[in-house]
Amino acid sequence: MNTADPLSIHLVLDHATLLTMDDGRPGPLAGARQGELGRVDGGAIAVAGGRITAVGPRDEVWRFVEARNERTDAVDVLDAAGRVVLPGLVDAHTHLVWAGTRADEFEARLTGTSYLDLLANGGGIHATVRATRAASFDDLAARMTARLDALVDHGVTTVEVKTGYGLTVDEEMRHLDVIAAAAAAHPAHVVPTFLGAHALPGAYAGEPTPDRGAFVRAVIDMLPRVAAHPLGLNGPLFCDVFCDAGAFDVAETRAVLTAAKAAGLGLKVHSDEFENLGATALAAELGATSADHLVATTPAEMAALAKSGTVAVLLPLTTIGLGSTHFADGAAFVRHGAPVALASDWNPGTAPCPNLWLALAIGTRYGRLSVAEALVAVTRNAACAVGRDGVAGRLAVGRSADAVLTDSDDPRDLAYGFGTNRAVRVMLGGRWVR
Amino acid sequence: MNTADPLSIHLVLDHATLLTMDDGRPGPLAGARQGELGRVDGGAIAVAGGRITAVGPRDEVWRFVEARNERTDAVDVLDAAGRVVLPGLVDAHTHLVWAGTRADEFEARLTGTSYLDLLANGGGIHATVRATRAASFDDLAARMTARLDALVDHGVTTVEVKTGYGLTVDEEMRHLDVIAAAAAAHPAHVVPTFLGAHALPGAYAGEPTPDRGAFVRAVIDMLPRVAAHPLGLNGPLFCDVFCDAGAFDVAETRAVLTAAKAAGLGLKVHSDEFENLGATALAAELGATSADHLVATTPAEMAALAKSGTVAVLLPLTTIGLGSTHFADGAAFVRHGAPVALASDWNPGTAPCPNLWLALAIGTRYGRLSVAEALVAVTRNAACAVGRDGVAGRLAVGRSADAVLTDSDDPRDLAYGFGTNRAVRVMLGGRWVR
Repeated sequence: MNTADPLSIHLVLDHATLLTMDDGRPGPLAGARQGELGRVDGGAIAVAGGRITAVGPRDEVWRFVEARNERTDAVDVLDAAGRVVLPGLVDAHTHLVWAGTRADEFEARLTGTSYLDLLANGGGIHATVRATRAASFDDLAARMTARLDALVDHGVTTVEVKTGYGLTVDEEMRHLDVIAAAAAAHPAHVVPTFLGAHALPGAYAGEPTPDRGAFVRAVIDMLPRVAAHPLGLNGPLFCDVFCDAGAFDVAETRAVLTAAKAAGLGLKVHSDEFENLGATALAAELGATSADHLVATTPAEMAALAKSGTVAVLLPLTTIGLGSTHFADGAAFVRHGAPVALASDWNPGTAPCPNLWLALAIGTRYGRLSVAEALVAVTRNAACAVGRDGVAGRLAVGRSADAVLTDSDDPRDLAYGFGTNRAVRVMLGGRWVR
Repeated sequence: MNTADPLSIHLVLDHATLLTMDDGRPGPLAGARQGELGRVDGGAIAVAGGRITAVGPRDEVWRFVEARNERTDAVDVLDAAGRVVLPGLVDAHTHLVWAGTRADEFEARLTGTSYLDLLANGGGIHATVRATRAASFDDLAARMTARLDALVDHGVTTVEVKTGYGLTVDEEMRHLDVIAAAAAAHPAHVVPTFLGAHALPGAYAGEPTPDRGAFVRAVIDMLPRVAAHPLGLNGPLFCDVFCDAGAFDVAETRAVLTAAKAAGLGLKVHSDEFENLGATALAAELGATSADHLVATTPAEMAALAKSGTVAVLLPLTTIGLGSTHFADGAAFVRHGAPVALASDWNPGTAPCPNLWLALAIGTRYGRLSVAEALVAVTRNAACAVGRDGVAGRLAVGRSADAVLTDSDDPRDLAYGFGTNRAVRVMLGGRWVR
C-alpha cells in the first residue's frame, strides 16, 4: 500500500450508530421531513485524503476498503462500540472577535443594576467595543483561536464568526483580517460574517439628535471593501444586521442588506430577539440565507421563511444567558414548514457558552423540537444556514471528513442528558482533533 | 526529609485566588452573610496526610512549609497561575442508584405524551424501579461508581446519594448496600440517605382503594434496620420523604420523619417541588437538616427555615430538565435569612445532569442569587445541608484536602460563563483525582 496515495483509505470509524443526515437531496430538512436522520446501525465511515470515501453499513464499507487498498492492516481503525456518530456539528451563529470581560456587569445586573444603566455608563456592548478596539491584532487572533478550540472540543467543526465589535471601517476591516488569520491557522472551517450594523457607536449617538443615517451610510460604504476581502475567496461571506429595539430599524436594515446583496454578499439578520420590527418578513423578501433569534416571530412570518427557504436559526442559550423565559417556539417553525437550526450565539453579553449540546437540550425542552429535529438543527440545517450545504452537515461521500463520536449509543440520550460535553472524539478533515 | 512522616508537607497548591468560604464560625452562611467568601489573592494550600495543614497568603504558607519540612524541593507544587481555587464542591442532593434509561420517555413527552399517560402505562418512576430491581448488585454499584466519577470530574468531592428506586424492604436495604460498596471503593466522600418514601409502589396503588397506610407503615418498619446499617458508622445517615402532589402528604411525611428522628436518623424532605402541601413548615418544626426543591415555598416558610437553621436546597437543574419556567426564588430565601444550597438532583426522570456549575449559572440567572451566594451554596452551605459542616465545604486547616482548581481567575466568571465544566484539576484527600 502506498500511504501517499490519496485514494487509499487511511482511517475507518467502525461499529458506529451513524446519523448521516443525508437523503441525497440538497437543502435543509423542513417540517415533518426533519425526522429523517439517515440512521445506520452497525455503520462505518472510510476516509481518504481528508474526505469521506465510503459511508454506510460496515460490511459494505469494509468491502470497499478491501477493494481500494492493497493492504488493510495499516488502516487506522477506531471502534465506536455502537455509539452515535454525527456529522461534525455546525455552529451557525457566533461572535468570537472580542476582548475584555463582562463578568463584572453580569454580577452588577444580578444585584440590581439595569442593562440600560450600564449602557448609559459606557458599559454593555460599548465596553466590549472599547476593549476590542484597544486589543492588539495578535491578542484578538489568540482569543478567537482559543474560542475555536473550545468549540471544536465540544464537537463543532464548522463555525460562523461575525465581526461587529469594531463599528468603524478600520476596525471592522481589522476584525475581518483577524478572522482570516485565525481561520487560516485553525483546522475548523470558518464562515465569516460582516456585522458592521451591530450597534450605533457612541460617536453617532450624540445629543440632541443622534445621526443614525450617517452611520448606516458608513456601513453601506464599507460593503465593497468587505466584498473584496480575501475571506470571500473560499466560500460564502455574509452581511448581517441587528434589527431590534435599541439597535437598527427595518428601513435601516433594508438599506444595508439591499446594498450587501448588490455587492454579492450573502444575507443574515438578527430579528425578533426582543421586539418584532418586521425584519423576518424582510429576510424572506430579500431571500436571506438565515434569520436568527426569532423569539417574537409571528406564524405568518414563519410561513414566509418556509416559502423563501430562509433557515430559522434559533438561539436558546441566549435566552438562558439573559435569565429570560421567552424562548423561540421551534415546534411552531417546524409546523409552518420553516427549516430550523440551533446555534450557540457565543458572545460576551448574553451567551458566554460554547456548548452546542446544551442548545440541543434546551431547544427540545423549551423550543419543543423533537430530538430528531434538534439533531438536524445542529448539523444539516445549520450548514444550510451558513451556505455550506454541499460541504458540511452530512456524512456523505466526497465531503470533508468531519464527524463527532458521542458518548451514547442512543440518539435520544444526546438531548435527554444535559450540561456536559457529549463529544468523545472529533474528526476534522480526516484527522482526530480531539 | 522523611516522606513517610505524616507531618511533612507533600503537596502545595500555589499562586491561587482562594475562596476559603471560612470565617472560623460554624454553620451555614445565611442572608447578607452569604457574601463572605474568605477570598485570598496570591494564596496557597499546603497538604500533609490528606489534610490541609496550612492555607492563606502564599508567603505565610511557604514559611510554614519551610519550618515543617527538612527539605522543600521534594514537595509536589502545582501553580494555579492566579486561577480561582474553591473547596471541593458538595452535591447535596442526588439519586445515583438506578438502572435503565428514560431517554425513550423524554422523546415521547416531547412529541405529546403526558407524564400521567406514561405513569398509567407503567412508565415514569415505575419504569426505573422495575429496571433497578432487575439489575444485579454489581451492575448497580458500577453505575453508581460511573456517576460518582462524572461528578468528581466536574469538581464535586462530597456527594449525597439517596435510595428510593427499591420501595420494598429488601430492595431498599440492597440499595444501601450498593451505596456502601460503591462509596468504600471510591475516593469521593458519600453521604447516604434512605428515601423509602419516594413513590407509592404499584402493589399498594390498587383499586378500588390504594392502601397507602400499609406502605407508610412498611417504610416506618424499615427504619430500625436502616439506622443499624453500617453506612451510619462514619457520618450522618439521613431519612428523606417525597412530600408532594402524587407522592406523600404531610401527615404521611410527618409519620415517617418523626419515626426516623426517633431512630436517630438525620432528616431531609422533598418539599414544594410542584405544590405546597406544608412540608417546609414541617421540616422547620422537626429541625430537619435540609428541605429540598422549594419552588412553591411561601415567605413565612422561608422565615421558618431561617429560624430552625434548616438549609434550603434549591435544584434549578430539575426545573430545566422539566422544561419548566418555575424556578425556586433563591434571592427570597436569602432575604428571609434562610441558608441556601444548590444541588444537581441528578436522577433519570427530571435531571439527567452531573454538572453542578450549571446549577450555579442557572441559580444566579433564574434564582437571582448573587455570585457569592451561589458559590457558598455549592460549598459551605451544601456541606451543612448534608451534615458535613466540620468536614467539607471549606478550605481550612485540619479538614480533608478537597479542592477544585477552576479555569478562571475571576470568581464572577464561574457563574457568568455557563455550559462547560469549570474544573481543571480536582484534589480529594490530598490526591489529584483529575
